Amino acid sequence: MEGVLMRGNGDLRGLEFETGVQLHAAGSCLVKLGRTHVLCSASLEEKVPGWMKGRGTGWLTAEYGMLPAATNTRSDREAARGKQQGRTVEIQRLIGRSLRQAIDLAALGERTLTVDCDVLNADGGTRCAAITGAWVAVALALKARGLEAAVVRQVAAVSAGVVEAGEGRRGVVLDLEYEEDHLAAVDCNLVAARPAGGGELLLVELQGTGEGRPFSRSEADALVDLGLAGCAALMEAQRAVLA
Amino acid sequence: MEGVLMRGNGDLRGLEFETGVQLHAAGSCLVKLGRTHVLCSASLEEKVPGWMKGRGTGWLTAEYGMLPAATNTRSDREAARGKQQGRTVEIQRLIGRSLRQAIDLAALGERTLTVDCDVLNADGGTRCAAITGAWVAVALALKARGLEAAVVRQVAAVSAGVVEAGEGRRGVVLDLEYEEDHLAAVDCNLVAARPAGGGELLLVELQGTGEGRPFSRSEADALVDLGLAGCAALMEAQRAVLA
Amino acid sequence: MEGVLMRGNGDLRGLEFETGVQLHAAGSCLVKLGRTHVLCSASLEEKVPGWMKGRGTGWLTAEYGMLPAATNTRSDREAARGKQQGRTVEIQRLIGRSLRQAIDLAALGERTLTVDCDVLNADGGTRCAAITGAWVAVALALKARGLEAAVVRQVAAVSAGVVEAGEGRRGVVLDLEYEEDHLAAVDCNLVAARPAGGGELLLVELQGTGEGRPFSRSEADALVDLGLAGCAALMEAQRAVLA
Amino acid sequence: MEGVLMRGNGDLRGLEFETGVQLHAAGSCLVKLGRTHVLCSASLEEKVPGWMKGRGTGWLTAEYGMLPAATNTRSDREAARGKQQGRTVEIQRLIGRSLRQAIDLAALGERTLTVDCDVLNADGGTRCAAITGAWVAVALALKARGLEAAVVRQVAAVSAGVVEAGEGRRGVVLDLEYEEDHLAAVDCNLVAARPAGGGELLLVELQGTGEGRPFSRSEADALVDLGLAGCAALMEAQRAVLA
Amino acid sequence: MEGVLMRGNGDLRGLEFETGVQLHAAGSCLVKLGRTHVLCSASLEEKVPGWMKGRGTGWLTAEYGMLPAATNTRSDREAARGKQQGRTVEIQRLIGRSLRQAIDLAALGERTLTVDCDVLNADGGTRCAAITGAWVAVALALKARGLEAAVVRQVAAVSAGVVEAGEGRRGVVLDLEYEEDHLAAVDCNLVAARPAGGGELLLVELQGTGEGRPFSRSEADALVDLGLAGCAALMEAQRAVLA
Amino acid sequence: MEGVLMRGNGDLRGLEFETGVQLHAAGSCLVKLGRTHVLCSASLEEKVPGWMKGRGTGWLTAEYGMLPAATNTRSDREAARGKQQGRTVEIQRLIGRSLRQAIDLAALGERTLTVDCDVLNADGGTRCAAITGAWVAVALALKARGLEAAVVRQVAAVSAGVVEAGEGRRGVVLDLEYEEDHLAAVDCNLVAARPAGGGELLLVELQGTGEGRPFSRSEADALVDLGLAGCAALMEAQRAVLA
Repeated sequence: MEGVLMRGNGDLRGLEFETGVQLHAAGSCLVKLGRTHVLCSASLEEKVPGWMKGRGTGWLTAEYGMLPAATNTRSDREAARGKQQGRTVEIQRLIGRSLRQAIDLAALGERTLTVDCDVLNADGGTRCAAITGAWVAVALALKARGLEAAVVRQVAAVSAGVVEAGEGRRGVVLDLEYEEDHLAAVDCNLVAARPAGGGELLLVELQGTGEGRPFSRSEADALVDLGLAGCAALMEAQRAVLA
Repeated sequence: MEGVLMRGNGDLRGLEFETGVQLHAAGSCLVKLGRTHVLCSASLEEKVPGWMKGRGTGWLTAEYGMLPAATNTRSDREAARGKQQGRTVEIQRLIGRSLRQAIDLAALGERTLTVDCDVLNADGGTRCAAITGAWVAVALALKARGLEAAVVRQVAAVSAGVVEAGEGRRGVVLDLEYEEDHLAAVDCNLVAARPAGGGELLLVELQGTGEGRPFSRSEADALVDLGLAGCAALMEAQRAVLA
Repeated sequence: MEGVLMRGNGDLRGLEFETGVQLHAAGSCLVKLGRTHVLCSASLEEKVPGWMKGRGTGWLTAEYGMLPAATNTRSDREAARGKQQGRTVEIQRLIGRSLRQAIDLAALGERTLTVDCDVLNADGGTRCAAITGAWVAVALALKARGLEAAVVRQVAAVSAGVVEAGEGRRGVVLDLEYEEDHLAAVDCNLVAARPAGGGELLLVELQGTGEGRPFSRSEADALVDLGLAGCAALMEAQRAVLA
Repeated sequence: MEGVLMRGNGDLRGLEFETGVQLHAAGSCLVKLGRTHVLCSASLEEKVPGWMKGRGTGWLTAEYGMLPAATNTRSDREAARGKQQGRTVEIQRLIGRSLRQAIDLAALGERTLTVDCDVLNADGGTRCAAITGAWVAVALALKARGLEAAVVRQVAAVSAGVVEAGEGRRGVVLDLEYEEDHLAAVDCNLVAARPAGGGELLLVELQGTGEGRPFSRSEADALVDLGLAGCAALMEAQRAVLA
Repeated sequence: MEGVLMRGNGDLRGLEFETGVQLHAAGSCLVKLGRTHVLCSASLEEKVPGWMKGRGTGWLTAEYGMLPAATNTRSDREAARGKQQGRTVEIQRLIGRSLRQAIDLAALGERTLTVDCDVLNADGGTRCAAITGAWVAVALALKARGLEAAVVRQVAAVSAGVVEAGEGRRGVVLDLEYEEDHLAAVDCNLVAARPAGGGELLLVELQGTGEGRPFSRSEADALVDLGLAGCAALMEAQRAVLA
Repeated sequence: MEGVLMRGNGDLRGLEFETGVQLHAAGSCLVKLGRTHVLCSASLEEKVPGWMKGRGTGWLTAEYGMLPAATNTRSDREAARGKQQGRTVEIQRLIGRSLRQAIDLAALGERTLTVDCDVLNADGGTRCAAITGAWVAVALALKARGLEAAVVRQVAAVSAGVVEAGEGRRGVVLDLEYEEDHLAAVDCNLVAARPAGGGELLLVELQGTGEGRPFSRSEADALVDLGLAGCAALMEAQRAVLA
């Protein structure tokens, strides 16, 4: 649509973080990855769920939603349907698990961080953008409350896939747009973590799916390589916005 | 929080419209009225609900939601609770009724306009800001599809109230912030319409409530006067953004 | 159906209150306003919702329903559909707000009044008849428990509208039947209150809607005038039944 | 409460039918059996459920509800809870099965009769009173539409039980009030039918439950005897009201 | 399907109990009655529902379900539909009431027994097989926990009916298969109890329904006779498996 | 519990398939992997969902459930709660995606295969056992209907993980029991496919999660190696049962 040069197979889309977008949240961040825009916030409550009381440790939970007009054809409002879709539930569980790796729950104390990720515009990779943006919101929230010591790892996520059709990029490519995601034979979401003080990039989640066909061991390796490189670049941008 | 002078009783908060915010919607508009920010979009489908088929006329429906982190204390996600609150349902019915007065449904033809209003930040007056912003989104959507002739009236909404306590404005005041709304003895939402070609300002909805005490006939008159003046100012800004 | 003379524009339909209809309720009243019949009851519990405990004041809440066979064409049973309609929710919120203006919640003490309004026959104006009848049920309930001092205001409600079509009444008319309501260009529900010891009639709720077209300031004035006169007449009948 | 003489073990409570209570229903009947009052209506639609189309026969379905204030302590509104209780579902299935034995569905043609039974006051035996009253509503509805030939059997229902405690009736007793029902060791609901043209009384449903203890074959016999006698008396009253 | 001789009118289908099938349950039993297979388990918790606390007695509750592939045509999964069917609710209430007659709730102490009955294969009579198998599971569970003294009665259930069509058994027949149940004019489920120490067979539940036509007093008698004989045989098998 | 020798890190638990367990299903299989038992069935309908009609290809969908007594402490029945858990939804989406890789949907024609996987006993690895067993049920169903040509790949699944605590196996281990799963720092589910005619083992799904800590690239490699070897062994057993 916009007259862009074709991205290289290992290139991320243009990335932007806008912070402080939600005035009441302890931390918030609108992340824009190309035409995928996700509003992330972190709210902090001075209590934990009933089943955790008295343990002295905190909790982090996440919710994900998509505004009805975020998609190409307007999608149903889940609140009106009275039910979250399976896809939504799966994504918010992934976001929660991923960000719990960023936090030392004991250092958080008996507090609950609730992360909300709402997609304003969807063009592929919304769950990965949500994780990357939510980490910024969480870090901002804990900093604002003097709890930055509870942030023990930096966490970011990216998609990769094998595209064998279409008029755009082909082969093993990073950070798929909707059109590429739709065409991809193999699709992978990768969440990475790095110790807060710096150090080796590790894996938090690795979810590869053969949507169109099964995939080989060597394809899996290529996807992980590309994904880790993408996460390293995303983390650099995260650090810049927090600096 | 921001070092503002105290507003006069008849003053609106600062108003801003940002259009084109949702890339897939036929029309969209982020309206900011002070610290109340509502993302409005209008989606256009080439069909009508089953019960309307074959009449040759269109339909407009509205949905309203609030992001969990939009409020002072994070509120529950309605999609997760599996149920929209009574307040939500009431507001989206009001938005739909109000905007149907803006449109000539026959001129729209067998199409459905779905208006989505999602509150990103709530500081009082979200339903009124939603109506004002949604009218812009609808007008943009119909213009983009060459259907501007279906827009027969301009519609805007504002709140007014009687405040008798607190450290801010007192008396009959326009465009209440959350704190004022909370303190108000009487609360009024007023939706006004003006023929697209210009002309007298008329009432579409008038909802006055004695939250703290009943109110007199003359108080009702003062609230309507202030509300109509507020709507006239909002409509000027709407026209400017569409020009 | 009944061979009635046409009502004057400012006339109420025939009004009847039958009390003591629900044997277990603290107070109950079947209100008949023409062919609109609503069974109202007030139940009194010696406790308040959790969020109100320890404040020494009481609460009043309302629920509204319509028997499936109350309407011209049988309507769905909301309990069977598993969901209350938006209209139902909106009405029961209105009834609750209106009747809370009748009660001194501090004088009620830590008790909850639950008002139930169930429409047995619907012929327009059910929400207004519900409020008028529910006030009688509440007053009876509090009297029966020696709490009449908590009734600080008399509350009644009526509809009015602008009818420009049909074979019946035309112009600004009071207390619309279903057929008139259906034809009305403008529709208004007005709830009024009067101090228990007598005094000026004030407004509690004023809800005017331009269903068919926007309406002018002077039309609004005429609707309010007619509505207040109607409420005065309803209140006279309420006092008679309680005497 | 009222200074009544104690009923004999085989006596019904005072019985009254008030017809035409719901103005829009094809047939309606408020049945009062002592302090148990049930509003029954029969609505007739000129179509059948999808799965029955084209068979040339009709259908009868039933719904049951209890107004919240019908019981000693106010009960939850099922529409507000979003779910019908198991007891409700069980009762409306029983009412539907019982009344389908009253109707020749082929003679009804492709029409649906919907029976609504709403309890205004509950003092034991509501399901039986509902069946007895609903038969009157159905007979009135079919008569009003010239379909009386479809009524092939008269149907009525009554409860009986074995009471071994309390200060009232003891032994095998007919038509239990709430207090007796609560104390009963054995509880039985019996639905009977008689050919429209007269003839032997037969059983449609026989539901005996040992609530407090199992029961013997001879107790079962005594309950059935009493129940059939009670149904014969109820049917006489049904015929009188229709005559 | 299997080359069986036709059963006699008073014959049960082949019966088998397989115990210990669910490894975590306090007691479990897979009951096979012909081609009807129901997996029954009894779970024991050391607490009672809130409304029973402090009374020193226990509780027994039951749940019933059918695997989607248990029926001839796959049926909907109730968990996916978000709602249990009326039939399910009715059956689980029957199972609970029946088994509570087997237990001395005071001897159970403040414990809750939860009975789960899940149909793996359905060929008629699933609710009766469930009761018969669940009694075995409950007896095993209480024995395993040294609470066998709480089992005060043996409980079993069977169906009987009047079949007047089809190519199989005709007349009053015991233990109906799906095909017979479908054809039956009259259908009866009978639950019987016998004191744990031996003694007369009594009735716990008797549910007779005229599905196709009303039934006579003498038909009712024949169904009860056959049902009691069937329960006696089932109880012999229950004792054998527990021995 | 049973006096078994400790398994080697690369050993599967004892595996058994029992086929033909659900009499009405086109194909069914009870898979037992140690103490994890899952009942799998495949039902075949001669139609496709509305959105697929007319394309000439079929569809496969999956549902997953757990009997309440399958777990150590009885879990809630999802049908009774009226909602499937997020975990359930996630698992059934995984099962569906995995098995669609086994089938040539075009060769299936306009038919729908519905796979049901119900856990009778849970001891870790239920989703993997479900996939492995469901493949057998699907293969049996298609064979029974003469559609074996639609089975284009063999599919099986297994778990692996990194265990660093507890008294049992330590390190990178295959096929985790509940206790091991609970202790695992890293957890991986791997679904593999092999062309029906034989050939290289490929990946269909790879889901690795750092539950306790992030994991390294080389740990990921070791988990994949172990998982693929486990799947090869499971496939051998699948082929044996179908032979």
